[in-house]
Amino acid sequence: MKKLINNVDDVVHDSLVGVAAAHPELRVDLEQRVVYRGDAPKQGKVGLVSGGGSGHEPLHGGYVGTGMLDAAVAGEVFTSPTPDPIAEATKGVDGGAGVLHIVKNYTGDVMNFEMAAELANAETGVDVRSVIVDDDVAVQDSLYTAGRRGVGLTVFVEKLAGAAAEEGADLDAVEAVAKKVVANGRSYGIALTSCTVPAAGEPTFDLPEDEMELGIGIHGEPGRKRVPLASAKEIAKDLVDPILDDLDFTGAPVIAMLNGMGASPLLELYLVYGEVAALLAERGVTVERRLVGDYITSLDMAGCSLTLMRADEEDLRLFDAPVNTSGLRWGA
Amino acid sequence: MKKLINNVDDVVHDSLVGVAAAHPELRVDLEQRVVYRGDAPKQGKVGLVSGGGSGHEPLHGGYVGTGMLDAAVAGEVFTSPTPDPIAEATKGVDGGAGVLHIVKNYTGDVMNFEMAAELANAETGVDVRSVIVDDDVAVQDSLYTAGRRGVGLTVFVEKLAGAAAEEGADLDAVEAVAKKVVANGRSYGIALTSCTVPAAGEPTFDLPEDEMELGIGIHGEPGRKRVPLASAKEIAKDLVDPILDDLDFTGAPVIAMLNGMGASPLLELYLVYGEVAALLAERGVTVERRLVGDYITSLDMAGCSLTLMRADEEDLRLFDAPVNTSGLRWGA
Repeated sequence: MKKLINNVDDVVHDSLVGVAAAHPELRVDLEQRVVYRGDAPKQGKVGLVSGGGSGHEPLHGGYVGTGMLDAAVAGEVFTSPTPDPIAEATKGVDGGAGVLHIVKNYTGDVMNFEMAAELANAETGVDVRSVIVDDDVAVQDSLYTAGRRGVGLTVFVEKLAGAAAEEGADLDAVEAVAKKVVANGRSYGIALTSCTVPAAGEPTFDLPEDEMELGIGIHGEPGRKRVPLASAKEIAKDLVDPILDDLDFTGAPVIAMLNGMGASPLLELYLVYGEVAALLAERGVTVERRLVGDYITSLDMAGCSLTLMRADEEDLRLFDAPVNTSGLRWGA
Repeated sequence: MKKLINNVDDVVHDSLVGVAAAHPELRVDLEQRVVYRGDAPKQGKVGLVSGGGSGHEPLHGGYVGTGMLDAAVAGEVFTSPTPDPIAEATKGVDGGAGVLHIVKNYTGDVMNFEMAAELANAETGVDVRSVIVDDDVAVQDSLYTAGRRGVGLTVFVEKLAGAAAEEGADLDAVEAVAKKVVANGRSYGIALTSCTVPAAGEPTFDLPEDEMELGIGIHGEPGRKRVPLASAKEIAKDLVDPILDDLDFTGAPVIAMLNGMGASPLLELYLVYGEVAALLAERGVTVERRLVGDYITSLDMAGCSLTLMRADEEDLRLFDAPVNTSGLRWGA
């Protein structure tokens, strides 16, 4: 295992030390492992909290800032944070207008965020709502999940709900924005290589030099099937087909994200996006906004995922709204 | 070799197709392999052109846009573009105020940009100046270079000169900004793994599982030496020491970039940055601005580089000025 780390047990802590050093505009609680907006809590604003296992950076800490999250809670690598720090974060961003939890659909995360909401509410009476993101069309009931896994769409939920909250929408409205994104977005991923969890010290799974895995999760969970290594043109089809089979993306503007899993260079991600864009055009899907890059990763896995979201004019407006985070930044 | 590509000979072309699809705000000339600002040429504005071999994305195409480059010329992977497309780009961004070439110090790039400047000037009379970036303190006279190699500082040259040009500075002034950055910046890199050039199909060099290479270049050129794989804390020292040995970074605000080589996840880059920041503070270096992420890569190499630049208030102002590119974006 070759990684830029000190002790395998300190990876998350040490990385958060770097986040604190790199981003004086944020406040990092190293004990609780929570990244806050520097100005949290914002009085009168709905607070947005997300989090989960580490290893998916920039998700979630990279999306803390104006127009997106108020706090992100970092668990150990690929391991949900416990309820206590989530409850701390929830109280810490409570500006009197309630708090929305954005939770990827993994059993541990769902349970711990729920307990955290109860804890925080019991202590301070804060109104906590929750939205569960379950956009991965690849599998039902995977290794860590009942139902579908939550993957790339989480970035769009955080962006659009964050924009609504920043504009002063109330808790009902922010929750509605988030749920609308969940209803209208789907994702699918492929891997060329496994990732290596630092504490494990070796690749999570073996993938022969001439094979790739379709429908992979962001923790190296099994996907749909292994197939021979294919061209980018074929991979684009592997990504697009299962998503379009699951939901109709015609007749509405679409927001697309071609996401890198961590070790695939941008040169390749753009190349795949070119193939995806051509295929979507053929299928009558009109992409109006697009992101290409590493937005939700799986440590050092090589591969990519595609996320599509059916949008309306209001969604596009919220997507375009100013955002000032290390992972997404525009108009600010 | 596992890559998200079609034919190895089409990698650069196919990737530019994706850039065009992902960025309707840019204009991509697929024949000449030039990425232009959509609004180029801007009348009365100094034009900025950079480029070089592909494989370093987001450099250079990702830095085309308001406040940075007017055009980027993409060569084959790790191979300089020829003079003709550079001359095309030079003419294409000429708004009557002259053009600055920003050239990383590799023999092929220096020669081809020089010939391109002569070609363009002979054809249209455009005044072309050139700044050579040679910030890598690791080695003198490397595989492709006479003198020092040009690496991470190129991002700062493009950012600061781009800001000056956007504000309406004339060619003398923009050239002076670029040369001041070159005089005041230094870089150093380390690799945990080799990269694999698509056309070669196998890693450029072998690096055993328990070793890393110090002073590596961005094309897999040899560095200073191979050493046993070390902790992030030791790697931070490996990065900082040769830079501070070469130039005094005390007594001035410093702009720092901890750059990923392509396959190292952000979790690890932040971790290294935390160690670097602590070490710089110990050595009396005051970092006022910082970037952490993939800004100038070496395909799928794992590793990182550090760039430091002595700045003054004017440099900080130009660094902070609005920029709207896919690789750097703020205030716009």
